[in-house]
Amino acid sequence: MANGTPERILLAHGGGGQLTNQLIRSHILPHLGNEALAPLGDSACLELGSASICFTTDSYVVKPLFFRGGDIGKLAVCGTINDLAVAGSRPLALTLSLIVEEGLEVHTLDRILESIGQTARQAGVSVVAGDTKTVERGSADGIFINTAGIGIRLPGVELGLDKFAVGDKVFINGTIGDHGLTIISQREGIRFESQLESDCAPLAGLTCMLLENVQGIRFMRDATRGGLAAVLNEMVEGSRLGIEIREADLPIKPVVQGAADVLGFDVLNVANEGKFVAVVAPEAAEKCLELCHAHELGRSARVIGEVVESRDLPLVELRTKIGGRRIVQMPYGRELPRIC
Amino acid sequence: MANGTPERILLAHGGGGQLTNQLIRSHILPHLGNEALAPLGDSACLELGSASICFTTDSYVVKPLFFRGGDIGKLAVCGTINDLAVAGSRPLALTLSLIVEEGLEVHTLDRILESIGQTARQAGVSVVAGDTKTVERGSADGIFINTAGIGIRLPGVELGLDKFAVGDKVFINGTIGDHGLTIISQREGIRFESQLESDCAPLAGLTCMLLENVQGIRFMRDATRGGLAAVLNEMVEGSRLGIEIREADLPIKPVVQGAADVLGFDVLNVANEGKFVAVVAPEAAEKCLELCHAHELGRSARVIGEVVESRDLPLVELRTKIGGRRIVQMPYGRELPRIC
Repeated sequence: MANGTPERILLAHGGGGQLTNQLIRSHILPHLGNEALAPLGDSACLELGSASICFTTDSYVVKPLFFRGGDIGKLAVCGTINDLAVAGSRPLALTLSLIVEEGLEVHTLDRILESIGQTARQAGVSVVAGDTKTVERGSADGIFINTAGIGIRLPGVELGLDKFAVGDKVFINGTIGDHGLTIISQREGIRFESQLESDCAPLAGLTCMLLENVQGIRFMRDATRGGLAAVLNEMVEGSRLGIEIREADLPIKPVVQGAADVLGFDVLNVANEGKFVAVVAPEAAEKCLELCHAHELGRSARVIGEVVESRDLPLVELRTKIGGRRIVQMPYGRELPRIC
Repeated sequence: MANGTPERILLAHGGGGQLTNQLIRSHILPHLGNEALAPLGDSACLELGSASICFTTDSYVVKPLFFRGGDIGKLAVCGTINDLAVAGSRPLALTLSLIVEEGLEVHTLDRILESIGQTARQAGVSVVAGDTKTVERGSADGIFINTAGIGIRLPGVELGLDKFAVGDKVFINGTIGDHGLTIISQREGIRFESQLESDCAPLAGLTCMLLENVQGIRFMRDATRGGLAAVLNEMVEGSRLGIEIREADLPIKPVVQGAADVLGFDVLNVANEGKFVAVVAPEAAEKCLELCHAHELGRSARVIGEVVESRDLPLVELRTKIGGRRIVQMPYGRELPRIC
């Protein structure tokens, strides 16, 4: 152990929690640090002449390749679109890079490519460049996909953790935990598997609509790896203010809560692929909710908490249903490998 | 077999030759086709307000991770920079996405990240966004890296296969085969290994200097997977004209030729990572060579052939040293797996 980092990479280094954070801060940023990378946002923002763009990337290693509600192809398109969307941009173009294991059925590849094409068309983005690599049998697991994306920043939209104020409302566009618990249940062959479905969806239609119609949206982030707990912790860390959420207001499907209880997961730590958290001015919350409720991907949107003064440290606190309080920690990261 | 495609993915599907082409045309384009993707260039070109940009991606799966003259990190930066450079742009920003196998030594990751940072700084590009995924032991091979990149198109530069004219000169900025034969020799533990070194280098400094100082550059492409043979075949296929090259003028280091002879490779089919082929107007060739020769990455630049009328089919022909002619075919793609 040096600087608290183990000597070998653990699965938890990719879990989106504490260890991922540590890896980025201790090993990646020192070599690559620059102004655009420093905010560690969902996308980098770049000014190119008169255009202001967002630029982002994600690799997808989800297992299994096909799951209820989606597949690795749909996920690879939605995930990158969502990173552009929550940065306040309208997604425009994606690149697509495939690493394929020798022996993958061409038919399987076709199904994935079809899903990529369909999801991209529905979301109004084009796949404009690509790459295909193959590796020997046993050197990868079926297929890994990378997408990078460019979005055009919406004019007049300024989002940032520095814009939070005490009293701001925290809302989410729907139920949490659906994606992660679908994947893990399918992998483990749990009996209620058939009642679970990933929420994998492209959020840009909804986020652009909100940003174009509501003043007072301060910040948005999609709640993927590490779940709601990770994104709220990243937000308080960046804003230096606290967040208090109410357990009673968290939208969780009973079947998801049931699966989490059986499998021993805290739903707060479980990945979503069609959910974003937004912090909005108090006077903007009502309109945001109204617009969300009229949109297919926001029907179960809810205000789940508020921005509060931070005491000693900026913390996320949960008010439990029975009136207690507990600190919501940044997950360690080992809960769910290969969830996206 | 359906449409001549095998039912399972072969290593050769990633070789950059005939099978890669077939996979792209029969399976990828039908699902994703659009105007920006259709030219299948090294980068897509997009107009964003007043900015004209290039956008590209590549994943890197090279084995071994470290080789004479570079490593997977340096390669991941150079390869994507070079795709932007030959499209006539000045590379600006990269994204970096890592897929890391559980158990990789953190020290190894650090060496790779250091190399990425160093190469990017030297080339004047920033890594602005990133992603890290982990997969279980045995589900990847150490580390795979994806970089995507954005470049700003140089004003007034118009490159295209449709700009070729009979009599145009074909030149290359230096010796061929160095990268591929370094990798394969190191993998096989061949005795002359120590005399070989990859040519892995960022070409944007040289290409931008040429494009800014010489009128009459019609087209450029880097000669990576599939080597000089693949790139020349792609060029004649796109231009509908022929290309004739002279064996006597091909710059090949004796040790590279020796290694190719021993290992049974045609140097024409072997990957380079610091070489580009350019087609230039006859009156521009002299100035291009002069500028190349004054640049570190162009000292061995040579005119190697000309654009010629195509007879029945657009073909690449080689005039051999002893005065014969042979057709240079698109390689099949199985020569060298995991070369980049």
